[in-house]
Amino acid sequence: MDPRPEVLAFDVFGTVVDWHGSIAREVDAMALGVDGREFASAWRAGYRPAMDRVRRGELGWTKIDALHRMILDTVLERFGVTALDEAARRHLNLVWHRLDPWPDAVAGLQRLKHRFRICTLSNGNLGLLADMAKRAGLPWDLILSAEVFRHYKPDPQTYLGVADVFDVEPARVMLVAAHKDDLAGAQRCGLATAFVERPREFGGTPRDDLGRDHPFDLHATDFEDLATQLGC
Amino acid sequence: MDPRPEVLAFDVFGTVVDWHGSIAREVDAMALGVDGREFASAWRAGYRPAMDRVRRGELGWTKIDALHRMILDTVLERFGVTALDEAARRHLNLVWHRLDPWPDAVAGLQRLKHRFRICTLSNGNLGLLADMAKRAGLPWDLILSAEVFRHYKPDPQTYLGVADVFDVEPARVMLVAAHKDDLAGAQRCGLATAFVERPREFGGTPRDDLGRDHPFDLHATDFEDLATQLGC
Repeated sequence: MDPRPEVLAFDVFGTVVDWHGSIAREVDAMALGVDGREFASAWRAGYRPAMDRVRRGELGWTKIDALHRMILDTVLERFGVTALDEAARRHLNLVWHRLDPWPDAVAGLQRLKHRFRICTLSNGNLGLLADMAKRAGLPWDLILSAEVFRHYKPDPQTYLGVADVFDVEPARVMLVAAHKDDLAGAQRCGLATAFVERPREFGGTPRDDLGRDHPFDLHATDFEDLATQLGC
Repeated sequence: MDPRPEVLAFDVFGTVVDWHGSIAREVDAMALGVDGREFASAWRAGYRPAMDRVRRGELGWTKIDALHRMILDTVLERFGVTALDEAARRHLNLVWHRLDPWPDAVAGLQRLKHRFRICTLSNGNLGLLADMAKRAGLPWDLILSAEVFRHYKPDPQTYLGVADVFDVEPARVMLVAAHKDDLAGAQRCGLATAFVERPREFGGTPRDDLGRDHPFDLHATDFEDLATQLGC
């Protein structure tokens, strides 16, 4: 790549942490009489439509914690779960603060951190990302969020916002993500891009969009592979 | 204190890092023919007036890196330094990213981090604070800045912004600072407050405002003392 990136900005849900497995395990452990994997998928399915309501201006700025809660209440009703009181719903909603990283994530980030400034660029809110990093030991140099820019990805203000925060040209920032729509948004703004395979993001059914026929700068099988490719 | 704080938010310049000594050392090493300590004091003296121009709306939102640069050019002229080219001025301006922590800061923060969520609440911009933390090993759970809230301290949006980010009542946030005007601003917003003595903030002349006759919740001699008082 030319120019060489100085800042690596990471998508988080699915790229750094295993939201599907973490939520499925916690829901199963609650013995609510629902399938944890189906519940996790249903909860996540409401995520993009909820953010799009904010992006279109139908809903004022709303943090992901609040969007997750709105979706959760709907999903609980749809799955016929009525026994959860307010405190239990609040606790369950914060499972997004307690997601486990993929096995390679912490070690890969530690290697990358020696050579690059590493930050998040997530639609998750700051408090969520801080709690997650503290629990999982994610060694971010900076936590950046849609909350800082008051725009959700893939709005350009988010990708260009990272370059502005670090006072570098957009081409000096590389977005690292497991999602091609996110990477395409970054690429349109002039950022460098690295696709990372996360075949089990949705649980048992492997993703079928992991091919190398894409226009991104790098293709990595995980963060250790990314660190190796970037000379760390 | 009742309620007990959950989040400790730290002022940075002067409270966590020694801006005066760090800048004086770097300026002296440049052999510009000026006294590093006087130069550091003059540079810092322009800081509050510059921010106040933003706070009053005379100047649109401007990051501290840019305000520091405006002040630097003035101070260089006043001190009769004309030989510095653009690259050297840019490098010198980023000395604020390279400030050294007080000797107790890292160890104290490590102790406090076990029991509390620890974050910055600084007028410094995000990139500055991230570079500083990376270089000095400051173990923040989250870096928060005036840049996130688009308001400079002591505007209430900054103090209340920390509580909002962590979704807690203001009384659950404690501001830790070496400056009584900052603490007073936080107290007006309902935050808990801890004053930390930094007698050498301005170099050789000890500060004369370190007395315990203040209305704040805690008074600590340094971060190790603060950790002990907070049961860490």
